[in-house]
Amino acid sequence: MSRYAIGLDYGTNSCRSLLVDLDTGEELGSVVFPYPSGELGILTDPSDPHVARQHPQDYLDGIVAIITGALSQAKAVRPGFDAGEVIGLGIDTTGSTPIPVDADGTPLALKPEFAGNLNAHVWLWKDHTAHEEAAAITATAARMRPQYLAKCGGIYSSEWWWSKIWRCLKVDPAVFHAAHSWVEHCDWLPAVLTGNTRPDRIKRGVCSAGHKAMYAREWGGLPDSEFLASLDPALAELRGRLYEEAFSSDTAAGELTAAWAERLGLKAGIPVAVGAFDAHMGAVGAGVVPGTLVKILGTSTCDITVLPNSAQLGEVPGVCGIVDGSVLPGHYGIEAGQSAVGDIFLWFVHHLVPDSYGATVSEKFEEMERRLAALKPGETGLLALDWNNGNRTILVDVRLTGLILGQTLHTEAHEIYRALIEATAFGALTIIRRMEEYGIRIDRVVNTGGLSLKNATLMQIYADILGRPLQVAASEQTCALGAAMFGAVSGGGISLEEVQRNCCRMREVQYQPIPENEAVYREIYALYKALHDGFGLSGSTSDFSGVMKELIAIRQRQRA
Amino acid sequence: MSRYAIGLDYGTNSCRSLLVDLDTGEELGSVVFPYPSGELGILTDPSDPHVARQHPQDYLDGIVAIITGALSQAKAVRPGFDAGEVIGLGIDTTGSTPIPVDADGTPLALKPEFAGNLNAHVWLWKDHTAHEEAAAITATAARMRPQYLAKCGGIYSSEWWWSKIWRCLKVDPAVFHAAHSWVEHCDWLPAVLTGNTRPDRIKRGVCSAGHKAMYAREWGGLPDSEFLASLDPALAELRGRLYEEAFSSDTAAGELTAAWAERLGLKAGIPVAVGAFDAHMGAVGAGVVPGTLVKILGTSTCDITVLPNSAQLGEVPGVCGIVDGSVLPGHYGIEAGQSAVGDIFLWFVHHLVPDSYGATVSEKFEEMERRLAALKPGETGLLALDWNNGNRTILVDVRLTGLILGQTLHTEAHEIYRALIEATAFGALTIIRRMEEYGIRIDRVVNTGGLSLKNATLMQIYADILGRPLQVAASEQTCALGAAMFGAVSGGGISLEEVQRNCCRMREVQYQPIPENEAVYREIYALYKALHDGFGLSGSTSDFSGVMKELIAIRQRQRA
Repeated sequence: MSRYAIGLDYGTNSCRSLLVDLDTGEELGSVVFPYPSGELGILTDPSDPHVARQHPQDYLDGIVAIITGALSQAKAVRPGFDAGEVIGLGIDTTGSTPIPVDADGTPLALKPEFAGNLNAHVWLWKDHTAHEEAAAITATAARMRPQYLAKCGGIYSSEWWWSKIWRCLKVDPAVFHAAHSWVEHCDWLPAVLTGNTRPDRIKRGVCSAGHKAMYAREWGGLPDSEFLASLDPALAELRGRLYEEAFSSDTAAGELTAAWAERLGLKAGIPVAVGAFDAHMGAVGAGVVPGTLVKILGTSTCDITVLPNSAQLGEVPGVCGIVDGSVLPGHYGIEAGQSAVGDIFLWFVHHLVPDSYGATVSEKFEEMERRLAALKPGETGLLALDWNNGNRTILVDVRLTGLILGQTLHTEAHEIYRALIEATAFGALTIIRRMEEYGIRIDRVVNTGGLSLKNATLMQIYADILGRPLQVAASEQTCALGAAMFGAVSGGGISLEEVQRNCCRMREVQYQPIPENEAVYREIYALYKALHDGFGLSGSTSDFSGVMKELIAIRQRQRA
Repeated sequence: MSRYAIGLDYGTNSCRSLLVDLDTGEELGSVVFPYPSGELGILTDPSDPHVARQHPQDYLDGIVAIITGALSQAKAVRPGFDAGEVIGLGIDTTGSTPIPVDADGTPLALKPEFAGNLNAHVWLWKDHTAHEEAAAITATAARMRPQYLAKCGGIYSSEWWWSKIWRCLKVDPAVFHAAHSWVEHCDWLPAVLTGNTRPDRIKRGVCSAGHKAMYAREWGGLPDSEFLASLDPALAELRGRLYEEAFSSDTAAGELTAAWAERLGLKAGIPVAVGAFDAHMGAVGAGVVPGTLVKILGTSTCDITVLPNSAQLGEVPGVCGIVDGSVLPGHYGIEAGQSAVGDIFLWFVHHLVPDSYGATVSEKFEEMERRLAALKPGETGLLALDWNNGNRTILVDVRLTGLILGQTLHTEAHEIYRALIEATAFGALTIIRRMEEYGIRIDRVVNTGGLSLKNATLMQIYADILGRPLQVAASEQTCALGAAMFGAVSGGGISLEEVQRNCCRMREVQYQPIPENEAVYREIYALYKALHDGFGLSGSTSDFSGVMKELIAIRQRQRA
């Protein structure tokens, strides 16, 4: 008899499933469902580029499509496949992605009276409207509850739970007051599948609670009422309609209801794991253990590592989240990330690459990669900052923007693309250096996510800039794989160690840093860091008068 | 009986003629000849983006095409037209654009043994290979002959005469030693037409000599031998094969030879004026007088004004040239400029604008202009530096490069185009402010050149940023018009004042600054100036951490 689990991974533009054989790691089915609403699934507001919302109906339509699709594929691949042998279901999502819900747990956006009101919809992680609220929360916490900030990098972000909810209260009190409670996307879907959507019955995950809602057991859960009331009394009042306790994903959120089991073709009563964020489950799917950094390279990037919760670990400034149990039970989950990586490349290819590179987006990428691969480090003479969507780690500031310098009258699109890739790698190096400064050992880097699988040129540039060998996880769906693994483990019949051992594989290809490239990139990184600190650190003063000249000197040396 | 003159204007990518009626200002013929060699007439070297050379044969082929063409047009337009009533010919060119020639004045590039050797060709103004030599000349002059620097803005440029000749000596001594002399493009063409190509018979213009070769009557002409020998003894030796005296363009370089008269269909013996640079003759064609700044808006930009040479005028730091008689006889010609303006827009449209804006370059420009005209100042959130080809005035530094910041994931090409236009206008404002600081009054700004005629959106942005009304010269060929005017005046039968009165007209359209736009641009200019000084002034330190946030704040205010 076989044992299977299904993981569901809800991303920024689509959701996908993975059906895995828990004993062999074989992946038998995977289906993608692009969200039909808005622009690539995102509801935007032309008058404010910070707005990014989603429609909860897209999530529900996705469940059926991706699970039934994966089961069909499994039947085709393995004739004797029996859906009754699926022993658990796990779900990860983006976050912090809060949903305003009524007393039954129904999202306000699904109610006719709120149709068309973006504030009643899902506030997607990359919605940056709440930067004023984030700044006020940071200032208030610094004054009243510095311990809250210590665990989230010293700065509370506009991408997070309380900033967004408070923003809603300010700009659309009608929506705020109509919401009985708010639920993270990753907590709402397990609640739906297990029939536990009533807010007081939803099992909330410690991953989202700890990383985004300032939840910690050591201060009694969510931020206290006095603190919340000093932001706004309505937030203190909301606290009582949220939750007292949050759980790690080796716990079940409940059992699959008969109605859903029927619709999906699964066995009723199988466990659905407590939800968590995509990167955290992805890190587990990629085999995270202490000393390993898992980089999930997608539209944005998450960098995840773990440390046994017996270790002494203080505040790490600018590292967004350190939460007990958010990745592996018994370990601190340590999360960092870059607000845009693949998104910067997509922005560039959509808006600034002429058709001489190709007619389609993928032809343009291919031709640019072919041409930039022929360049040596520094040959472009360009240097960029990777801040088109702000900087999450280590500056934690959404009110930063992109920068590129070094352009001549000869600069071409593929050279700028190379500079943008390098900028994201310099951003990644800045994160690793910060972790190491504070005693978080990184022996090994495992990469996962689309870019690590598809873009060998990018991976080599990353190896040269990070200055260490890079491995790539074999699974193309590590987030969904991690979710599936937690689905299995939450039923209690199999341990996480065993599932990781069976299912986490590496690709044969490894990217080794090339010493002469490393040396040039060390020089360029010093310039990147100067711009990073000069534009990013309040009150810093800089002498930039040598930056352009040094880049020209490196370019001349590299071209010679 | 009518009086006509012909002006020839040799630009970066093409040359053109203008045949003008000196009594009415009517323009009867004008023909363009695109240089056939290289890329748009420029010979480049893929291994060094600083190389820009030209082929002298292109210049010769052009003469015939554009004069005979203009005469044909005049005959068509005015049936009684008689080419015998053309009383003079004048020529302007780009510069400093030196040509190595043999003892007969034949360019080395036209001799078989140097065919294909870029160093034996014409060193086009925008060739930037000689930046090391320029820096050494600046340092040596600062030590030995500070008076040489005082008149050229305090920094000798890699675009200029001695830098390029010295560079040639260093990188290709065979070419240097084969050259009996060197001649500016603007001096060589009148010499060709008047049969005076033997280097000792060429009448050199004071415009090129004074602005680019550190020539001044007060120190006995060209830099002295001791100074040149301290650069390289071979340069001191070359001095004896150059010239002792230089002339303003109201002087004739000689008389049109019978052979050329025959080929061109003109009367033999008419005067050909001493040559000068395009911008200087263009300023005269646009009606420059004291208090008027003429801006020639093309691939690069020249800003020209004049001051009676009886005025007290000290050094103006960073203003490249102040030369007695280089524009109007009896006046200091004051020249400033931006190394790339139209060239930046062309670079952008060729390399970074997707076909969604249109299939051709002009469709892309049109669509971008349509879309950017709908934006308010500051709405893009972007800020750029206009240094893709270095900065001529007021930093005089080719080792500077472009910069753009403020990009989000939503930034589109037309927004960047707007930021690039604004950057060039901020650069223009920086020049005017520097002149005014040093007592050069600017009451009136007259614009000429392609951009001033074709791009009303750009002109309005310029008016808003410069904060003063802008006029546009009526002639589409002010450089060729100025050349024609000098051709007439060099014969002695008509005064420059009379010709300016008859021929310099303004368009009816004037661009008035819009007060609310001016106010926003004053704020953004402060940020531009901070970046300008921070990246451009050696040893300056600044706090840049507010720049991105201030741009976001302005964007939000303007969009609201």
